[in-house]
Amino acid sequence: MPTETEVALERAITSHRHHSLYSDRAAKIKQSAVRDVFDISLQPGLISLAGGNPFLQSLPLEKLGGMAYRLITEQGLTALQYGGGQGTERLRAQACEVMAEEGIEDADPANVVITTGSQSAQDVACKVFCNPGDVVLCEDPTYVGALNTFEAYEVTVETVAMDELGLVPDELQRRIDEVRSSGGNIKFLYTIPNFNNPSGITLAAERRQRVVEICQDANILIIEDNPYGLLRFDGHPIAPLRAGNPDDVIYMGSFSKILAPGLRIGWALVPAHLQRRFYLASEAVTLCPPTLNQMLISEYLDGHDWRGQITTYRSLYSERCAAMLQALEDFMPDGVSWTQPQGGFFVWVSLPEGIDTYPLLYKAIDAGVIFIPGAAFTPSDDPSSKLRLAFSAVSTENIREGVRRLAPVLQQAMGAR
Amino acid sequence: MPTETEVALERAITSHRHHSLYSDRAAKIKQSAVRDVFDISLQPGLISLAGGNPFLQSLPLEKLGGMAYRLITEQGLTALQYGGGQGTERLRAQACEVMAEEGIEDADPANVVITTGSQSAQDVACKVFCNPGDVVLCEDPTYVGALNTFEAYEVTVETVAMDELGLVPDELQRRIDEVRSSGGNIKFLYTIPNFNNPSGITLAAERRQRVVEICQDANILIIEDNPYGLLRFDGHPIAPLRAGNPDDVIYMGSFSKILAPGLRIGWALVPAHLQRRFYLASEAVTLCPPTLNQMLISEYLDGHDWRGQITTYRSLYSERCAAMLQALEDFMPDGVSWTQPQGGFFVWVSLPEGIDTYPLLYKAIDAGVIFIPGAAFTPSDDPSSKLRLAFSAVSTENIREGVRRLAPVLQQAMGAR
Repeated sequence: MPTETEVALERAITSHRHHSLYSDRAAKIKQSAVRDVFDISLQPGLISLAGGNPFLQSLPLEKLGGMAYRLITEQGLTALQYGGGQGTERLRAQACEVMAEEGIEDADPANVVITTGSQSAQDVACKVFCNPGDVVLCEDPTYVGALNTFEAYEVTVETVAMDELGLVPDELQRRIDEVRSSGGNIKFLYTIPNFNNPSGITLAAERRQRVVEICQDANILIIEDNPYGLLRFDGHPIAPLRAGNPDDVIYMGSFSKILAPGLRIGWALVPAHLQRRFYLASEAVTLCPPTLNQMLISEYLDGHDWRGQITTYRSLYSERCAAMLQALEDFMPDGVSWTQPQGGFFVWVSLPEGIDTYPLLYKAIDAGVIFIPGAAFTPSDDPSSKLRLAFSAVSTENIREGVRRLAPVLQQAMGAR
Repeated sequence: MPTETEVALERAITSHRHHSLYSDRAAKIKQSAVRDVFDISLQPGLISLAGGNPFLQSLPLEKLGGMAYRLITEQGLTALQYGGGQGTERLRAQACEVMAEEGIEDADPANVVITTGSQSAQDVACKVFCNPGDVVLCEDPTYVGALNTFEAYEVTVETVAMDELGLVPDELQRRIDEVRSSGGNIKFLYTIPNFNNPSGITLAAERRQRVVEICQDANILIIEDNPYGLLRFDGHPIAPLRAGNPDDVIYMGSFSKILAPGLRIGWALVPAHLQRRFYLASEAVTLCPPTLNQMLISEYLDGHDWRGQITTYRSLYSERCAAMLQALEDFMPDGVSWTQPQGGFFVWVSLPEGIDTYPLLYKAIDAGVIFIPGAAFTPSDDPSSKLRLAFSAVSTENIREGVRRLAPVLQQAMGAR
């Protein structure tokens, strides 16, 4: 539902003599609900369960600052200069070490392309594979940033049903057949298999190979977006879809969640036969990723116990997730349900069908808490009875207080039906 | 002319079962001659007159290192976190101060969008304005990175003739009429008015308003790419096209040439009525520009005499340009001509018609010097008798020695005709 400001802005845009100059895709690029919320969340006193920011307080800032100092003073002529479009060799090799932690043992640094965050990797993937009108399959719900990118490429987004174990393989096959029989040209399945943003759901290990085989048989690629994979609360990471399938999966990783999003460094591990065009397309967007940032991450990975840091994050986020689940249990009215994440940043809350969570956002703000309405995370324009809560950046006390503030807002909406 | 490796790679790409998944635009994204040369230029002993790298040795590295240290240790929770998609308010305000130095007095920080280098701003401009098949006008020659971006958006590039005073207004009008009468849909004129990369030519002050008026009357936008504008050797900068024309020009600035390209921070100053879609499209590509890098530049601009630093650069590059022009005068055979830049990084050398400079690159490498063949800088597939020499990153001694090595290669090619 556009705000009054948005309507006014749209009117100003369409009445100008330059209006005819916009590309067809420009009209499809819209302000997202997440962005609305980002501005609101800066208000003091509000508890924000909206933004999926990592908790940076536990980073070794003194050490990182010293590394940046030495990089600039001792290697500044390299760190501040243009670099190669594919990213530094050192960081590409280190990205392979990070992926090995999750079970990708055969990654070749030559097939890694460093990108400006993994958002930029998604943009490049669309650039390389998607004509307007092509179809992309994804989970429902899925990452709002990916949906924005798909819109910018005028891609038709078709969703595949999930259950508590993630994508349902038979549903995937059914949707492929359905889309194709109505003439759709499917290019790839976009999936966040671990602790999906926003749902928190993980694709079960026993389903993973089946998903790959279905896509392989159908000759469509898989884009595996895995920023949270190492942030599993207990036990070992589940092997990514890419692990045994080097030719069919473009794997996207990120340093945003295991180190720092403000550095904007992610990467794509690309099948060897697709690497060249992917890399050249990436170069055409940004020339090269920021050199200083790549070198700082390399120093951190070599000079700090980054695996220990991830262990710290895992127990921190695990504790916060537990606090959120307990608060939901304690405060939420009957009829509200939620997911049980095994890692990551998010819990997905379902209200009874027919309740639109978007207008509830403004009531929640009055009550002193914010969330992101579920409509942001689906390609559909229909109202959504879901909402996303993030526990990553908030103390356990504030998580509990935030959920306590939210409960009567939801209860009232349910009672008003 | 594709190399053997390129042919082999192309064959491997096209024979794979995934080949049918590429977008139409992907096939148009090719390795550039500049990229070929970038790899070669790493060989020891070669004098590279190829790359347009700024000379970073004169930067206050100790000071910059200290700033980075303090940002991370004292403000790390902001500097390493996600930021707004439009860039920080502080840096947007400072970008307006930088533009004021050149004569843009009325820039509003609300209309500035910080981007991942100005390459990314060009990508966003194409995203917002260009459908496949739309026409973009540009100088001939023009920036290779812009040509790569245009190719990625399947834009038809039409060139406008230049003389020693830059774009010829009557030619611009003639080309607009010509393209339109053959059904072309022109979206914008892309121009580098100051010290054009690669030609070094500057659009004369007395032609500038006429160029804007022609585009205004034709209802097409101007993309003014101005990374070098402050690097004028003598006198005041010439006012940008944007200066008196807030509604018709998207101005692109960069910190790559006046500070450090490895930070990958540029900006676009966008007409108010176009700002919103431009900013949202930018956000869909990278989410937000790197926060640390923006804050480091803000600290530098506030805590260092950046105007004095630019004065240092101006006299350094002026001296190097003079050394190059003198060496060309001393060593080049009759029949070779070159431009007389008033600033920037490049001299454009013309051989007699009919000589292709691309194969000469390999002879020059044997002689111990590299340049970039002119064909890289035009949308045409025809051979070019021009070449680009960069003086920005090389000592005056090496500039002279490089030109001395190049001269016999050109002389032999001319004699062989």
